[in-house]
Amino acid sequence: MSTVQIGDLVIGGREKVMIAGPCSIEGRDQLLQIAREVKAQGAQMLRGGAYKPRTSPHSFQGLGPQGLVYLKEAADETGLVTVTEVMELEELDLIMKYTDVLQVGARNMYNYPLLKRIGKTNKPVLMKRSFMATIEEFLLASEYILKEGNTNVMLCERGIRSFDTMTRNILDLSCVPILKKMSGLPVVVDPSHGTGRSDIIIPMTLAALMAGADAVMVEVHPNPKKALSDGLQTLEFSHFRELMGQFDSLCDYIKAQQDAQDNKNLRGAAS
Amino acid sequence: MSTVQIGDLVIGGREKVMIAGPCSIEGRDQLLQIAREVKAQGAQMLRGGAYKPRTSPHSFQGLGPQGLVYLKEAADETGLVTVTEVMELEELDLIMKYTDVLQVGARNMYNYPLLKRIGKTNKPVLMKRSFMATIEEFLLASEYILKEGNTNVMLCERGIRSFDTMTRNILDLSCVPILKKMSGLPVVVDPSHGTGRSDIIIPMTLAALMAGADAVMVEVHPNPKKALSDGLQTLEFSHFRELMGQFDSLCDYIKAQQDAQDNKNLRGAAS
Amino acid sequence: MSTVQIGDLVIGGREKVMIAGPCSIEGRDQLLQIAREVKAQGAQMLRGGAYKPRTSPHSFQGLGPQGLVYLKEAADETGLVTVTEVMELEELDLIMKYTDVLQVGARNMYNYPLLKRIGKTNKPVLMKRSFMATIEEFLLASEYILKEGNTNVMLCERGIRSFDTMTRNILDLSCVPILKKMSGLPVVVDPSHGTGRSDIIIPMTLAALMAGADAVMVEVHPNPKKALSDGLQTLEFSHFRELMGQFDSLCDYIKAQQDAQDNKNLRGAAS
Amino acid sequence: MSTVQIGDLVIGGREKVMIAGPCSIEGRDQLLQIAREVKAQGAQMLRGGAYKPRTSPHSFQGLGPQGLVYLKEAADETGLVTVTEVMELEELDLIMKYTDVLQVGARNMYNYPLLKRIGKTNKPVLMKRSFMATIEEFLLASEYILKEGNTNVMLCERGIRSFDTMTRNILDLSCVPILKKMSGLPVVVDPSHGTGRSDIIIPMTLAALMAGADAVMVEVHPNPKKALSDGLQTLEFSHFRELMGQFDSLCDYIKAQQDAQDNKNLRGAAS
Repeated sequence: MSTVQIGDLVIGGREKVMIAGPCSIEGRDQLLQIAREVKAQGAQMLRGGAYKPRTSPHSFQGLGPQGLVYLKEAADETGLVTVTEVMELEELDLIMKYTDVLQVGARNMYNYPLLKRIGKTNKPVLMKRSFMATIEEFLLASEYILKEGNTNVMLCERGIRSFDTMTRNILDLSCVPILKKMSGLPVVVDPSHGTGRSDIIIPMTLAALMAGADAVMVEVHPNPKKALSDGLQTLEFSHFRELMGQFDSLCDYIKAQQDAQDNKNLRGAAS
Repeated sequence: MSTVQIGDLVIGGREKVMIAGPCSIEGRDQLLQIAREVKAQGAQMLRGGAYKPRTSPHSFQGLGPQGLVYLKEAADETGLVTVTEVMELEELDLIMKYTDVLQVGARNMYNYPLLKRIGKTNKPVLMKRSFMATIEEFLLASEYILKEGNTNVMLCERGIRSFDTMTRNILDLSCVPILKKMSGLPVVVDPSHGTGRSDIIIPMTLAALMAGADAVMVEVHPNPKKALSDGLQTLEFSHFRELMGQFDSLCDYIKAQQDAQDNKNLRGAAS
Repeated sequence: MSTVQIGDLVIGGREKVMIAGPCSIEGRDQLLQIAREVKAQGAQMLRGGAYKPRTSPHSFQGLGPQGLVYLKEAADETGLVTVTEVMELEELDLIMKYTDVLQVGARNMYNYPLLKRIGKTNKPVLMKRSFMATIEEFLLASEYILKEGNTNVMLCERGIRSFDTMTRNILDLSCVPILKKMSGLPVVVDPSHGTGRSDIIIPMTLAALMAGADAVMVEVHPNPKKALSDGLQTLEFSHFRELMGQFDSLCDYIKAQQDAQDNKNLRGAAS
Repeated sequence: MSTVQIGDLVIGGREKVMIAGPCSIEGRDQLLQIAREVKAQGAQMLRGGAYKPRTSPHSFQGLGPQGLVYLKEAADETGLVTVTEVMELEELDLIMKYTDVLQVGARNMYNYPLLKRIGKTNKPVLMKRSFMATIEEFLLASEYILKEGNTNVMLCERGIRSFDTMTRNILDLSCVPILKKMSGLPVVVDPSHGTGRSDIIIPMTLAALMAGADAVMVEVHPNPKKALSDGLQTLEFSHFRELMGQFDSLCDYIKAQQDAQDNKNLRGAAS
């Protein structure tokens, strides 16, 4: 199993990681407020979109370069690692200057020229599974990056499309152990996009950890109802605090289990 | 939240329940051997099909009434509660005599005449979600039973159909908290059918518990490769033992968390 | 290629067949009015549900035996062949007395005991594909009937479930040539259920004919907005008349093409 | 209803159009041979990929600029209009020089920066529906092009993903009348990708015409078994000739029907 290291932060090791932040960066104050809150609650990485792929050309498309500036400022103040989506080659250099991790969005998983170009950098990548990709296609797409030499790749399950409208997507947690086994790469789960429902994000986060996820990524906003995108799946601060309490507790349990297993293995090896 | 009681066994309460056994009852010795093993490892309910709905009319269709006799004998010897599938009205009276819980299979979730008739009994029912049913259709189908007066209903998620062939079905764990919230009924998860892969049943069982499942149902066989049906998704004994170790440990963790929460609530109420 | 014969009507031969009628039989007058209209426009078979499988137990469930009486009366008056759905074994004998063709509904395609029992009769069967059955499962399900000796089976495509909500289902016309090739049985297409939209039934009916369908089944009602079920996908009389004009014209074209092909083959054989 | 004009060729008018050619341009001889054959049989547009988006980075990725040169040569010799896929912005200027129509592939339907940039040109565009896009998403994606001022857009249905493996995709012909009604744009159907099976391309082409398609696009190769990509869905020359015979005949029928309808309308208006 490989890990991805970003400064002091390791993803894919014993410590599970929480990635949190707004869907879109809406302004300086909004982002700083959220960054401080998620940092205080124990998140290690800040997410936030400056360039937003939207189904309709008439929807809010993100703040662009100005959003990157706010993201950098939030990182400098809080010490959080940052991740933001890159949608096209032209933005790549700029985004690489302002952020720590490049996100390949679900809509771009099949954008092979973009993947190849990212593969030529050494930036850590959080690569989302397309909502229509088979696990095999997802793994082959990641090879477009790996093949060019960039092995700092994390795979992110964020829900696949189905016939049911009760959730926005079907969160396919079975892919977590399969992806880990087949690729050896760290696996992240995004229950916000994966379900589209803030009311079930806590149980699905905990389920993702037991399925083997190395990190979880959730959307947080001081006022989800007023968020410019994805309000229904976004946690408010008190809800995020509750999530982190249960997240930390379960991570402790998982580590204790692993320690016990390690000791057992050591004793077995020694005898 | 309601519970379903079968003798001393309660489903939907604090104690999580393990349901295990072969896909098909293949013979007296096979069933007794499995029953003893799963009982010894801590399972409380024995599953085993006597009437098997098979995609092809040329496949093994189950032992029929003779299978029911073996199931009863295994129950009498081990004290395990039993569940078996009922496929048609004509078999209902016989199955009710020989078993504790009636299973409605995924293919029969839309068989409304069967559901109505089962609703007129007072037998506990384990009702599987069709692999093509929306959550809403699943809940409405359960009302065909509830409306007739039988409220001893457990809902079972067993995977839905998707475009990916890496797993047999997509195990939709998001439906667990939604079903519990909308129906108040106990929810069971079947990761054997839900994934079709024995190699990921342990993580998916643990994930199901954290998603809120009240019970988990898995397939166990002394020699999965020789099983007459569903071999790829069936656990051998040593694998089931490993599963039960982790299952018990996580159940203890969940109870400790609930106790802590209860104490906190009590203190809150007292102050 | 085999054909199914019902009195003088042949399905699977050169003449394409139109099956029309209400979703549900709502009353004597409603059914007679529709039967006369569709007969006058050239339909050869009358459809109408007396027993209705409904997603909710609180919805209208059909008129039951009284509906069968009305169906028989409409058949006697108009000379139309009739088809109605059988949902359970108990109703089978009664339905066989009152109707010409037994319909297996999409929800019952996996109801193997029902299929076996129908296989023991010699009644023609119109078997619908489940909305989430693979073509292989559909063919294997039909073997449950064929294996018992009843070879008067017609296969009906009625749409499969997908992620898009613009249509009720996805009408899978590709299955038509595949089903014909693999089974040799007559194939019927139901664009009413297959699309759920009356505004595209004419083009989809014509497309079905060119895909090779032997018959098309549509829902017709004097006042679709007041229909007790499936109003959105139901044609009013003037719309059905327009459909039949285009249907007849295209059937003439297809026959002319086949005649030309036959002549060419004959000349080829003679030379 | 709008039309798209490319030189003398009009798409979306009375004349149905056949687009044919290899999946990938494999060499100069291969392409010229195919271009001559499809021209001789009546095709008006030549397809052929120079840049190929492939699931695996280890598969053949196309001849690149050299392929464009061959395509231009084939166009110059035969007079066929040409269409080829553009995968990234960097290639756009070059492709615009060498070809008549820009194809947006299914994997790039969600590549909004690419769509916007194409919208700034005045080149005709053949835009494919993603294999998991809803009709609404497809229409909104086309607005990314239209909004920038390029209204020469043709929409192409090429199959959507489903649970059945009998065909490569499900060809969603219902979307044809819906797309035409909602957008007014010409609609193309690609039964090669839509089914993945050369044995059913003839009936599905004819069905597409009756569903209202303005053009059909198929893959043709002198030796499909040796094609570098998509061999199973590719027609050999004799098979394409048979297709064109039936295509032309049905187009004549459709025009005769429209003429009759026009005359009827004129008489109605005159009386």
